[in-house]
Amino acid sequence: MKTKDELPECPVATTVQLIGSKWKLLILRNLLVRPWRFNELRKNLEGISQKVLTDSLRSMEEDGIITRTVYPEVPPRVEYALSDLGESMRPIIKSMEEFGLSYKSISEN
Amino acid sequence: MKTKDELPECPVATTVQLIGSKWKLLILRNLLVRPWRFNELRKNLEGISQKVLTDSLRSMEEDGIITRTVYPEVPPRVEYALSDLGESMRPIIKSMEEFGLSYKSISEN
Repeated sequence: MKTKDELPECPVATTVQLIGSKWKLLILRNLLVRPWRFNELRKNLEGISQKVLTDSLRSMEEDGIITRTVYPEVPPRVEYALSDLGESMRPIIKSMEEFGLSYKSISEN
Repeated sequence: MKTKDELPECPVATTVQLIGSKWKLLILRNLLVRPWRFNELRKNLEGISQKVLTDSLRSMEEDGIITRTVYPEVPPRVEYALSDLGESMRPIIKSMEEFGLSYKSISEN
């Protein structure tokens, strides 16, 4: 997790620092459903590069939002899942989903 | 506003397309309090460039989230405010604020 010194004063800006990017928000959306493997995420998130996905997952792990579990298989299986802290972000994605549904319902054909 | 064809199938991705960037989220946070002038926003959003602020405001205006009002003074005063649609995004910023408060309360000194 980040220390207090590394966080902005404003709580909204704090959350923006943690997940304020297109890809982190979409990764969070996916992990709220179930754990995902790296290559699954890469296929699902159309247009993301390997580097951006790696960097996003690493910083979300460092920030305590997701966990990375390596299963000792051959080849090793690596799964990303939400931590309890990440799970507590569900209301953010839920409110984005609700807004998106409403926006789509009033947008023109 | 965007037409249905321009929007992703997923409602979360739709909202991410509209406000899924650091600066748009912080602009939304500010405009939820009151209307702001361009230079006020630029001073408040530390590190934003004139171009990124201009582009962000323009795309939020095109997407129907904010309004731009020019008052016929000398020099003309331009104010940005939330539309009703933008106002309906309040729960998103509210849930980000709540998460940020909780994250800050458990982060280390």
